[in-house]
Amino acid sequence: MTLAEPASRTIGERVAEEGALIVSGHDRTGIVAAVSTVLTQAGANIVSLDQHSTNPADGTFFQRTVFRLHDLAVVRTELEKALDRELADGLGLQWRLVESDQPKRMAIFASKTDHCLLDLLWRQQRGELKANVQMVISNHPDLAEKVRWFGVPYFYVPVKDGDKKTAEEEHLRLLAGNVDFIVLARYMQILSGDFIGGVGVPIINIHHSFLPAFIGAGPYQKAKDRGVKLIGATAHYVTEDLDEGPIIEQDVVRVTHADTTRDLMRRGADVERLVLARAVAWHAEDRVLRNGNSTVVFAS
Amino acid sequence: MTLAEPASRTIGERVAEEGALIVSGHDRTGIVAAVSTVLTQAGANIVSLDQHSTNPADGTFFQRTVFRLHDLAVVRTELEKALDRELADGLGLQWRLVESDQPKRMAIFASKTDHCLLDLLWRQQRGELKANVQMVISNHPDLAEKVRWFGVPYFYVPVKDGDKKTAEEEHLRLLAGNVDFIVLARYMQILSGDFIGGVGVPIINIHHSFLPAFIGAGPYQKAKDRGVKLIGATAHYVTEDLDEGPIIEQDVVRVTHADTTRDLMRRGADVERLVLARAVAWHAEDRVLRNGNSTVVFAS
Amino acid sequence: MTLAEPASRTIGERVAEEGALIVSGHDRTGIVAAVSTVLTQAGANIVSLDQHSTNPADGTFFQRTVFRLHDLAVVRTELEKALDRELADGLGLQWRLVESDQPKRMAIFASKTDHCLLDLLWRQQRGELKANVQMVISNHPDLAEKVRWFGVPYFYVPVKDGDKKTAEEEHLRLLAGNVDFIVLARYMQILSGDFIGGVGVPIINIHHSFLPAFIGAGPYQKAKDRGVKLIGATAHYVTEDLDEGPIIEQDVVRVTHADTTRDLMRRGADVERLVLARAVAWHAEDRVLRNGNSTVVFAS
Amino acid sequence: MTLAEPASRTIGERVAEEGALIVSGHDRTGIVAAVSTVLTQAGANIVSLDQHSTNPADGTFFQRTVFRLHDLAVVRTELEKALDRELADGLGLQWRLVESDQPKRMAIFASKTDHCLLDLLWRQQRGELKANVQMVISNHPDLAEKVRWFGVPYFYVPVKDGDKKTAEEEHLRLLAGNVDFIVLARYMQILSGDFIGGVGVPIINIHHSFLPAFIGAGPYQKAKDRGVKLIGATAHYVTEDLDEGPIIEQDVVRVTHADTTRDLMRRGADVERLVLARAVAWHAEDRVLRNGNSTVVFAS
Repeated sequence: MTLAEPASRTIGERVAEEGALIVSGHDRTGIVAAVSTVLTQAGANIVSLDQHSTNPADGTFFQRTVFRLHDLAVVRTELEKALDRELADGLGLQWRLVESDQPKRMAIFASKTDHCLLDLLWRQQRGELKANVQMVISNHPDLAEKVRWFGVPYFYVPVKDGDKKTAEEEHLRLLAGNVDFIVLARYMQILSGDFIGGVGVPIINIHHSFLPAFIGAGPYQKAKDRGVKLIGATAHYVTEDLDEGPIIEQDVVRVTHADTTRDLMRRGADVERLVLARAVAWHAEDRVLRNGNSTVVFAS
Repeated sequence: MTLAEPASRTIGERVAEEGALIVSGHDRTGIVAAVSTVLTQAGANIVSLDQHSTNPADGTFFQRTVFRLHDLAVVRTELEKALDRELADGLGLQWRLVESDQPKRMAIFASKTDHCLLDLLWRQQRGELKANVQMVISNHPDLAEKVRWFGVPYFYVPVKDGDKKTAEEEHLRLLAGNVDFIVLARYMQILSGDFIGGVGVPIINIHHSFLPAFIGAGPYQKAKDRGVKLIGATAHYVTEDLDEGPIIEQDVVRVTHADTTRDLMRRGADVERLVLARAVAWHAEDRVLRNGNSTVVFAS
Repeated sequence: MTLAEPASRTIGERVAEEGALIVSGHDRTGIVAAVSTVLTQAGANIVSLDQHSTNPADGTFFQRTVFRLHDLAVVRTELEKALDRELADGLGLQWRLVESDQPKRMAIFASKTDHCLLDLLWRQQRGELKANVQMVISNHPDLAEKVRWFGVPYFYVPVKDGDKKTAEEEHLRLLAGNVDFIVLARYMQILSGDFIGGVGVPIINIHHSFLPAFIGAGPYQKAKDRGVKLIGATAHYVTEDLDEGPIIEQDVVRVTHADTTRDLMRRGADVERLVLARAVAWHAEDRVLRNGNSTVVFAS
Repeated sequence: MTLAEPASRTIGERVAEEGALIVSGHDRTGIVAAVSTVLTQAGANIVSLDQHSTNPADGTFFQRTVFRLHDLAVVRTELEKALDRELADGLGLQWRLVESDQPKRMAIFASKTDHCLLDLLWRQQRGELKANVQMVISNHPDLAEKVRWFGVPYFYVPVKDGDKKTAEEEHLRLLAGNVDFIVLARYMQILSGDFIGGVGVPIINIHHSFLPAFIGAGPYQKAKDRGVKLIGATAHYVTEDLDEGPIIEQDVVRVTHADTTRDLMRRGADVERLVLARAVAWHAEDRVLRNGNSTVVFAS
């Protein structure tokens, strides 16, 4: 997790120069050379490079290149033309360019449980995330004061039985154009396919089990019933198939026969917030690339 | 895992004195006092005591007490009478007494994969297990030489398509009266209910996934397909419900998108042999008590 | 970590009945029987029992027994007499009796870093600790607002160069009679021997390394210089020998060559707060018993 | 740990084509582009690329590039000329080219303890290491039979008190020209500076503690005395400063107050063999690059 280090930089000067280039597509000879040549010819210095191929012979290729370039914002248009020419037209690749001084904008959905939500707000305050929390949306009013203490707006949108549609329409009005991704921090409502399709930004969820074990509701009770010796948490992108989306990060903690279901919930809460925090930090730095229903995560 | 320490003992003297008393039953007031009083009145010194109640109000109680007693073999009959009187008759409890210098006798079933099998044989040779491997039974001849090098008999019992019954009858003849428990060290055959019922001793299996995730065949391929970030192994008692028996021990190891299915198999092999070794060591020391479809494990 | 479960109890009724008896002393035959007999004769039902002997032949014995007893507060004096008679006089043991509905009172010392401090305040608010934070004392004013938001008093006591004595005298006036233990949550001042001796309650510190590696200041920089592949944190009781007191809990996290010293600090912060939280929770429940310069920890 | 996968290859055809290029030197703009251009112009397809810079502005740069190239052995001379011209002369870098079908040759030094030694021999037999064990050298005859069972020569070279020189001279005669690296698998003799300098190949040692904690002899006893809650193992390159060489890999396992020093040794043995096996596998695949007294490890 090589997070940005703003404190060691002269603000407004060098930070503006750092960028990340994300490339993916059908693997073929010469991609790494092409990418590094385009960047070098633009005057960029490559800071770090991660790449992965699902199969060098006939697979999918992924690369994340962090570079430094004077006046990136100024020369960006020219660089984009070169990327289109050399990577898109020349090699049939997709590419995406991000400037490192542009934090991503996130919304957090929560219900009544606060541990994942507060941990993210606190990490943002500490400067650990390359992301700003634009708003918190909840189907309960309970956590409003805690959230607003961090200077973040809290929108209470009740979800009435049998009428999720009205709530989701309000969600979409609040979110439209305002956020780059959404985090479900133990939000206890299932999102409709319409919402997921309509919102148009990635959604990260934390599931309180080591998926694919204990899919669905009540995973800690199921874990107790099955007598497992480790419990876990899973951060994943949300798709229409509940608990089936691409996994970003997972971790576990040891438990024993002496732990009650409540103990599992408490121990699990510590894993949930760590796993979700890692997933959000990595996503915010464009370290997570989707590969079908899996992910390529360039982080350690 | 406080294993026996034969090197620090005067053989034939103190080892003969150590015993373990396993008690279980409906929880009620006074059990701990009754057990410790019976032992103390018999002249025993309690070395360690672990107990667990699923619910002090109306649950199931489990206790494992290790004690030292001069001439345990001599006074055993008398002690057993007191246990029957005070614990069975008086409190309605089940009890079981084991002498620590009596290693359990085990059979190992294997197929072609050697890592779990060799690890157990090597740990027995090092004196890490309170158990002796009496025989190895396999449906393939491949591992005979490796096993016999350890001085352990190897019985090749082929399993013909559509005729598992003949093989299992031979298994039962080999095992009858000779072993106290069986370990399936990556044995790639499903045992019939008749065999499980007929053999009359506990059977420990190692499943190459973090159960209940990836039940059934090919768990590493399933793990790769699902894109999990940790893989694991599970040691459990075998019941007629495949992969559903009481879990004894589990552990995991981190993997990444860069790991192929073959990499998962290699990394997983290290977890499998560790998890199985722990489960076998604990079972051999009577540290694992079955509680319905769960286990109480008095080990750390 | 079987924490209290207030939600499942009828407040004012059963909680008042639960107690814990801590016994230690020279090991000898009959201690477990004596303890359980005293409790059973008093009408108590033993809920859980942990014991440890450094050496059954001639070592030190430790036992923590949790029990339920109607009207514990009423019959306490009588029970204490029996414990004095049977355990202290009869067997030469020390004993200590605590009622589980009496949370311990704690003070937290902090400086400018907030992660350990906020984590403890947040866990208290969630009901995870059997302890109340009575006050936070700091040599800096920075964290006052965050602490007071939790309804906890914040006392800013500056420490002037060359005059630690004046500050420590004020600390002692604030603490005297008000707290049962003290937690140093990344407090960046060394306590004098006079203070440690004078305050008369246990002090828990979190050291930001895997002790005994990297004793003293700047452990993360030292870890980076040495090129270690794991970093850790250690919670320990404070003694006059800096970083040498009895260790309560430790944990680690994996790092790589790509992590800068700042990255180590960020990753380490997550380990620090988890390790300190576990140590504080266990201490508050009397699960940590000092044994010379080590500890016996009855927790999992 | 993306180990070789011989089973999925047509032997003698594709394996011969895979190579790894290791580059290091003073970081400057254009290195990645230069390396990938040289390889691409030679007709190579880059399979994977890992790079690290200690500081993009003025640090040291490390890169490991795995590539596939038809007739690598044939065109190798030509490729080397291009690497000299473009990387050494042009950019002042060091480079090293290895063909992936050439396993490294290793010698293992051992004493009486077998767990690390047997684990390496067994992993070689399974095909997990890109290395062949050429010989085992020991100052004791005890393990000869176990080693020779694997078809590996065992040389017993006693070390007489006060005359290590004679033994080390024999070691050098046995090793000269025959091995690419040496592994000390719990070899209980300190190597002289003359030997380390004279042997001219890297030496990997496994230290039975989490360095820099518990340097020197008897680390498990020291760990017990200090009361640590985790014990570990460290694989490192041997330098003249005992236990101070660059660390390759470390790991830990949890222990409790109930574990005796012997228990720590047994639990530690499992960590030692895993940590050493990882370090040896990574070294054999040129994934470990020395950076002063640290290492850059391109593995996961």
